[in-house]
Amino acid sequence: MPNKTRTGKGDSNLAAVNAYLKKNEARFVRELSEYLEIPSVSAQREHRPDIRRCAAWIAKHCRSIGLATKIYETPGNPIVVARTPPVKGKGRLHYLVYGHYDVQPTDPLGLWVSAPFKPAIRGGRIYARGSSDNKGQHLAHLNAVEAYLKTGTELPCDLTFVLEGEEEVGSARLTEFLLKNRKKFRCDGVVVSDGSMPSLAKPALTYGLRGNVAVEVIVRGPSRDLHSGSFGGAVDNPATVLCRMIAALHDRDGRIAVPGFYRGVVPLSKAERRRLAQDPWTPKALAKFVGVPQLKGEKGYTPEEQRTSRPTLEVNGLTSGYQGEGGKTIVPAWARAKLTCRLVPDQDPSRIAGLVKAHLKRICPPTVRVEFSKGHHGGPAYLIPVTEPSAKAALRALEKAYCHPASMVREGGSIPIVSLFKSALGAETLLLGLGLPSDNTHSPNEAMSLAGYRLGARLGAFLWPELAR
Amino acid sequence: MPNKTRTGKGDSNLAAVNAYLKKNEARFVRELSEYLEIPSVSAQREHRPDIRRCAAWIAKHCRSIGLATKIYETPGNPIVVARTPPVKGKGRLHYLVYGHYDVQPTDPLGLWVSAPFKPAIRGGRIYARGSSDNKGQHLAHLNAVEAYLKTGTELPCDLTFVLEGEEEVGSARLTEFLLKNRKKFRCDGVVVSDGSMPSLAKPALTYGLRGNVAVEVIVRGPSRDLHSGSFGGAVDNPATVLCRMIAALHDRDGRIAVPGFYRGVVPLSKAERRRLAQDPWTPKALAKFVGVPQLKGEKGYTPEEQRTSRPTLEVNGLTSGYQGEGGKTIVPAWARAKLTCRLVPDQDPSRIAGLVKAHLKRICPPTVRVEFSKGHHGGPAYLIPVTEPSAKAALRALEKAYCHPASMVREGGSIPIVSLFKSALGAETLLLGLGLPSDNTHSPNEAMSLAGYRLGARLGAFLWPELAR
Repeated sequence: MPNKTRTGKGDSNLAAVNAYLKKNEARFVRELSEYLEIPSVSAQREHRPDIRRCAAWIAKHCRSIGLATKIYETPGNPIVVARTPPVKGKGRLHYLVYGHYDVQPTDPLGLWVSAPFKPAIRGGRIYARGSSDNKGQHLAHLNAVEAYLKTGTELPCDLTFVLEGEEEVGSARLTEFLLKNRKKFRCDGVVVSDGSMPSLAKPALTYGLRGNVAVEVIVRGPSRDLHSGSFGGAVDNPATVLCRMIAALHDRDGRIAVPGFYRGVVPLSKAERRRLAQDPWTPKALAKFVGVPQLKGEKGYTPEEQRTSRPTLEVNGLTSGYQGEGGKTIVPAWARAKLTCRLVPDQDPSRIAGLVKAHLKRICPPTVRVEFSKGHHGGPAYLIPVTEPSAKAALRALEKAYCHPASMVREGGSIPIVSLFKSALGAETLLLGLGLPSDNTHSPNEAMSLAGYRLGARLGAFLWPELAR
Repeated sequence: MPNKTRTGKGDSNLAAVNAYLKKNEARFVRELSEYLEIPSVSAQREHRPDIRRCAAWIAKHCRSIGLATKIYETPGNPIVVARTPPVKGKGRLHYLVYGHYDVQPTDPLGLWVSAPFKPAIRGGRIYARGSSDNKGQHLAHLNAVEAYLKTGTELPCDLTFVLEGEEEVGSARLTEFLLKNRKKFRCDGVVVSDGSMPSLAKPALTYGLRGNVAVEVIVRGPSRDLHSGSFGGAVDNPATVLCRMIAALHDRDGRIAVPGFYRGVVPLSKAERRRLAQDPWTPKALAKFVGVPQLKGEKGYTPEEQRTSRPTLEVNGLTSGYQGEGGKTIVPAWARAKLTCRLVPDQDPSRIAGLVKAHLKRICPPTVRVEFSKGHHGGPAYLIPVTEPSAKAALRALEKAYCHPASMVREGGSIPIVSLFKSALGAETLLLGLGLPSDNTHSPNEAMSLAGYRLGARLGAFLWPELAR
């Protein structure tokens, strides 16, 4: 951990910014904690009032640090837009900083050590749903901008924060919003901090993300749960049928058995595989970290390649019949699976969803009916050219902020909106994840390390001068 | 529907009994309704107080009609024993009448038209959990006995009602209780009304039941739900693994693929298959009744054979990962299936449970761990010799009560305790189901037809003289 500010030539005006960040550390944590108390779960209707409260909270915060802030209403959740004050001067660069104030659901609730919306600090980490994904990460950037504005240090770029409330459910409103307001959001690049780096001593720019797409399948058998004694044996069991269908989604080598699934997948180059081979995880360490007896993935690829650069098809949830205590001797009326695919260049999300559905329909026996729930969301994979000058600038800022050499990594997660920044705004995105692999995002006991939060604000301080150089 | 009492020679003293039954019909329905209001779900701990309240209710009722009644405490749910008053005379037959006051869980609650514990009468049926399985059926027998006692008509046999509160969870306490009190319950036979007949115009004695046994399997993968973007592809998915394991439980012909599963299964004789071919259901009618597009069962057997006389392995419930609204992109930490087998002579329940577990262990990959939850319950199948004199007496009583010819049928359900009556008490059991196939037992909207309840009491009136003949 760095304990002194290492500034290079031309960074002398950052001394005040970094001093301000240091001085206000405790307050920044209090503000994060307050922000985390709002249960802004976008997937669950019951949390709609919390979503609105959360948008209002972050908008108020943006205003308080000196940003011109507006809450845009949408047919879904509001979008908060906050701009730095105008600065005279021609040819100034304009960057968008993207974040999302919505969070994942909290279940299984019983596995949380402390309540997901009662932020608790233990061992230098703040535990709460949304701490790392994504409230802590965009708040760190806001802390840096606050430091510039409150110390009277001139920001070398104009910044627009775009904070949405539907990232965890597909960003449909933001997509519409940006497509309708292309001109307003014309920019030279986008900064997204919504991921992680290998460790605080190994800061990294993420140059690749997987895409994703969701398919929810329901197998319907009898019109009601049947007594398995009276009818079992003569009626097909929808749970069994669904299992057989899911079993037919992969082959023995861990490859996805959906016809056409791999068509258009760009093969990994030798250079890429060399870069991925620098993975800090050994297979054994990764297995231990996630708690499995043995890793398993697609044959012919390393675990790092499997989890960052190869497409997947996962079951996220299974539901059928009786799930309570004890037993209930029924043939269930239906069975459901929530499926998602992670995608790589150049797989198209809608096409993949169509292929998966067609395959499931094809293998579904005539003894049941198969249905798909409407409205899957998703987006394609994203790769930033490694030669992009802004990428090099970001690497310099990372090294200065974290006082360690920075690398380029490829991540397995998805931020579908990134492709939209490219297509609608023509802008490349710099993925600067401020989190850590141990943050338990999407899992019980999500946490953000306080050091990571602090260093994230430091990155925010160093980033804009490097990008403007 | 008969609208006059048809009594034969020697049945003249039944006129008063039948008149009493007719006169008190409305009150009998009110009493059933009161009994059904108690949510005596044995599978769920939260209902323990209701179980005790239910035992107290039925004990009080037994006392009120003149039976010497005692509630026996057990380490689980109480057993209610109620005896008819002693009658002088040598060589009187003694019959046990078995019933259970516990009921199945109610979920999926949303599918009930009226609340499961607010009995509602619609279209000549009383809707409530437990109406047909089993409160209405044993209460009908008690109504008949009440009619004998209150009209001063001499019962031709001594009767002992044994009403337990753990039938839906395996009857473990009753088993211990009967084994410990063999002498007290020595009897000439047992009457169990806990099933159905094809229709009120086709009354039937059930001469065969399937056995059953339960296995609950949990597949454990990562120590927590993982972000499917960060880790998906390199880690096996427990939900997918469980599906593959379940898919390997049956072959393409609908036969159970567990090695050794069919060893010892007594083949169906030609006579038996002829009898089963008299099934009132055509395959098309059965498919329509249960609401499936097409039936499916073990190759080489008719639907009637499949659902009554062949063993099965059913998934009763599936649970894994995220099941709420929207999506959650995780690799779930674990996946669970509740499985039960229906058994036929001479399959042994413990042996079958062992075979299923061994098979699941064998096919479980080394990338996950497989576990089984303790304490499966079950019992072997049961067949009463068709030549048994008491069976012929029961058929005569059925014809008199329902005014239609009675037949012998084989049922697919299980009443494990029946085998115990044979082994512990040396007694055969007469299975006289008073319900109908449309009763939705174990399903939402369970109901008992009021005509079936009324005629059940009439059967109770005719049965004892026929058995004593």
